[in-house]
Amino acid sequence: MRDFSTDHRWLSINTATVRAQWTLDRIIEECARRDIRAISPWRDQVAAVGLDRVAGLLRDTGIVLSGYCRGGMFPASTAEGRRAAIDDNRRAIDEAKTLDAPCLVLVVGSLPGALQGRPEGKDLRAARTDVQDGIGAILDHARDARVPLAIEPLHPMYAADRACINTLEQALDVCDALDPERSGALGVAVDAYHVWWDPKLAAQIRRAGRERLLAFHVCDWLVPTRDLLNDRGMMGDGVIDLPQMRGWVEDAGFAGYSEVEIFSAEDWWKRDGGEVLDTCIGRHRSAV
Amino acid sequence: MRDFSTDHRWLSINTATVRAQWTLDRIIEECARRDIRAISPWRDQVAAVGLDRVAGLLRDTGIVLSGYCRGGMFPASTAEGRRAAIDDNRRAIDEAKTLDAPCLVLVVGSLPGALQGRPEGKDLRAARTDVQDGIGAILDHARDARVPLAIEPLHPMYAADRACINTLEQALDVCDALDPERSGALGVAVDAYHVWWDPKLAAQIRRAGRERLLAFHVCDWLVPTRDLLNDRGMMGDGVIDLPQMRGWVEDAGFAGYSEVEIFSAEDWWKRDGGEVLDTCIGRHRSAV
Repeated sequence: MRDFSTDHRWLSINTATVRAQWTLDRIIEECARRDIRAISPWRDQVAAVGLDRVAGLLRDTGIVLSGYCRGGMFPASTAEGRRAAIDDNRRAIDEAKTLDAPCLVLVVGSLPGALQGRPEGKDLRAARTDVQDGIGAILDHARDARVPLAIEPLHPMYAADRACINTLEQALDVCDALDPERSGALGVAVDAYHVWWDPKLAAQIRRAGRERLLAFHVCDWLVPTRDLLNDRGMMGDGVIDLPQMRGWVEDAGFAGYSEVEIFSAEDWWKRDGGEVLDTCIGRHRSAV
Repeated sequence: MRDFSTDHRWLSINTATVRAQWTLDRIIEECARRDIRAISPWRDQVAAVGLDRVAGLLRDTGIVLSGYCRGGMFPASTAEGRRAAIDDNRRAIDEAKTLDAPCLVLVVGSLPGALQGRPEGKDLRAARTDVQDGIGAILDHARDARVPLAIEPLHPMYAADRACINTLEQALDVCDALDPERSGALGVAVDAYHVWWDPKLAAQIRRAGRERLLAFHVCDWLVPTRDLLNDRGMMGDGVIDLPQMRGWVEDAGFAGYSEVEIFSAEDWWKRDGGEVLDTCIGRHRSAV
């Protein structure tokens, strides 16, 4: 297992972590100043600054991506809606290619309308079919662009509105169905926050193996958790045994970045962005 | 599948549903008045009225129990704490026997101290060991008392503080380990709120079968859900396909009550108790 205690060369910042404080150009500048070598930006943050400008800033600073957030949201109640989602995912792949991202993270979506608070139905199985069909429809495009797709299983508390893929086992079943040859074009993003509770986690990480482990995200589960979406903790402040989980992914062959992704409306998003990044660096050394 | 549309003979009220409005004696009286034939009371509600008095009220009204809430909370950081939990579970079994409960529901517990907001560690595997050992330690007592134990897998969002058994598959693995002969002394409580998201749910309900399916709880998952604990919905107000799930448990041989258990600090606990019970009756017919 790699020693993280003496430097932060394997730290990546998911830019949602400081999205409330800074635009993406400033985030890149602040990361570069701290020798943070990787980020994972969101599409809306990229669009706000401009894709080509972001690509230029990355070149200038030498910062690379650990992933691009995000594709997905495949289910829809009409064929037109499903086609639109697929088209949008193709554009996300193209953007990821422009930014030389090692993967496009997929938050796959679930019941149509639920994210807007108006679910149009209860058919989780249909949503799961839409997801598998949608990923299948963009896989060749991703392969041509050399942008692997990373299915991110989301915590079951998001099963209604954000993602109907809720365990690593389920995500890997989709990978096996669509990419049985383990070509490298399709895999998973393992986010500690979403999967830490799973009694089958260690076994499924082994099953994933090097070819399927495309990203590793960290933060912490707070006790108590006061909000379903925006109360994630800084590494070390909660109950997830992150070094154990990192050991599992490294034993399975993962050798990439530990990407910090913290949604925290009442705490970290209210602090100074520099303090947040400095804390991420410290906790990456001591708690990941 | 049984027809629920014309009467409510298979409705049970988990008494937490109107705990904010009434004490248990009043709940029994109000259920009797509405021809509700079964309830599932909580230990603290029974203690507040008196065990013998509750037993008498049940005899007088003819109301039976669909379960008794609850045993569990096995993990502790000391041997003394684990012994105390086991002793307390034995007392819960005795109370359940006095009330002629068909099962004692187990909310198994998780990281010691977490429920009090002060987790003493992060070792989920140790908690799971404590749980299996604890259930093993009380199983003979339960068998002697003829009170089956129903392990309730809780939603993964409670994995830190309330239950480290989080899927039906995991609960059934514990059953198979401790009661391989499927004696009827150990099984599961399937609560729709906790398991609806699980892609393996239908298969695991089949695996459970008649001998292991000891209770079926219903409410609904609201979109959005505003609180992790106390924002459950009335059947029909959320996204769970309850008739489908009831079909699965009935196909597997379950023929007992559908027990309504709604924790709802901002809605149903603020309404008149009679309105809540009448709504449960109506939704039992139309949405379960």
